[in-house]
Amino acid sequence: MKIAVLGTGMVGQAVAGRLAELGHDVTIGTRGVQATLARTTPDAMGNPPYSAWAANYPQVRLASFADAASEAELLVNATSGGASIAALTAAGAADLAGKFLIDIANPLDFAAGWPPTLLVKDTDSLGEQIQAAFPRLRVVKALNTLTAALMVNPAQLADGDHSVFVSGNDTDAKKTVIDLLESFGHTDVIDLGLISTARGTEMVLPLWVRLMGTLNSPMFNFKIVR
Amino acid sequence: MKIAVLGTGMVGQAVAGRLAELGHDVTIGTRGVQATLARTTPDAMGNPPYSAWAANYPQVRLASFADAASEAELLVNATSGGASIAALTAAGAADLAGKFLIDIANPLDFAAGWPPTLLVKDTDSLGEQIQAAFPRLRVVKALNTLTAALMVNPAQLADGDHSVFVSGNDTDAKKTVIDLLESFGHTDVIDLGLISTARGTEMVLPLWVRLMGTLNSPMFNFKIVR
Repeated sequence: MKIAVLGTGMVGQAVAGRLAELGHDVTIGTRGVQATLARTTPDAMGNPPYSAWAANYPQVRLASFADAASEAELLVNATSGGASIAALTAAGAADLAGKFLIDIANPLDFAAGWPPTLLVKDTDSLGEQIQAAFPRLRVVKALNTLTAALMVNPAQLADGDHSVFVSGNDTDAKKTVIDLLESFGHTDVIDLGLISTARGTEMVLPLWVRLMGTLNSPMFNFKIVR
Repeated sequence: MKIAVLGTGMVGQAVAGRLAELGHDVTIGTRGVQATLARTTPDAMGNPPYSAWAANYPQVRLASFADAASEAELLVNATSGGASIAALTAAGAADLAGKFLIDIANPLDFAAGWPPTLLVKDTDSLGEQIQAAFPRLRVVKALNTLTAALMVNPAQLADGDHSVFVSGNDTDAKKTVIDLLESFGHTDVIDLGLISTARGTEMVLPLWVRLMGTLNSPMFNFKIVR
């Protein structure tokens, strides 16, 4: 599949790398191609610069948001939550019409430090805001409830015996995303229903960040035991 | 232990019954003893009236919030979230000083129907509001992330292989509560830290209610796989 991953951070790199390994045709979209390539220092979280990652993935192209989106059948929103609408606007609404989007972003607000709060919650969600802003985009909220390494390689934790969720209004888009998650190794993908159910998964983040503190590691996930 | 369970609904009944079976000296507190005993019809959720439950637990007493609290070493808040501060106020601040409280309530708001939203979230929590209103009460948030039947008998699901959480500022209170949860059969009690971490567990409810809809059953729980 021709896939555009929007966002060059840890999540974008993990998803783009895994998709490329699985044989997909992947372009990463960024706000400024030259600025992204020129960065030589780790980011605020200590992750290596994009160019260091990209050297290991020569088959993955880097392009502007608009160029990446224009060719793709499926888009992945791996930008930060507060920048997602702007990134998709830059990608161009006309180029998004009819396409599938996996929305991984969480609307985290670090303005008051750690732990972050949520920019939107409970009566709305980032997933719904994206769907409302781009009505012809077929948005599926997914993978926003676990760390990047486990999103794309769930089997490295408890042989993959844990759960992920999808929320979306479009049945075909959800089927494509569920197939993709299963190709990553996910064995328990729970379809919560319409995109409004993203309120539930986004509001898990306040527990997730506290668990990361308590467990002193991001290498954990929720399993829905039933 | 002498325990007062505040609230006569499904959660209060489940916790009081289990504590009595384990040999504790249990009183249930209610706003109006006569009104509670006079009810003969099921509640809005279809649960049988208190008197039907109480017939099977003759060793559990029913008393006013104040009478129940005055004798107890440990209190359990099993009232509805929106009524919790009023119930504890009725119990009497002087009678609460120094005592332990397990706060199971969630600040659910059903004003707009289903699914409920949260009356307080993200920058505050019901657990913190109770702690702030009664500074000498030693509040431990716990058991608010699973259905009543599993709170008190976790082994009936996957042999108890799932997780619960505690949040609180008082180390002795948390130790007592963790021991009590383990006596119920819980095998993975995660101490998240201060009472402010209740923001995390209360904000799981929007996912919980959607999972109940998707799974068509409340008999599930979160396991933190790590």
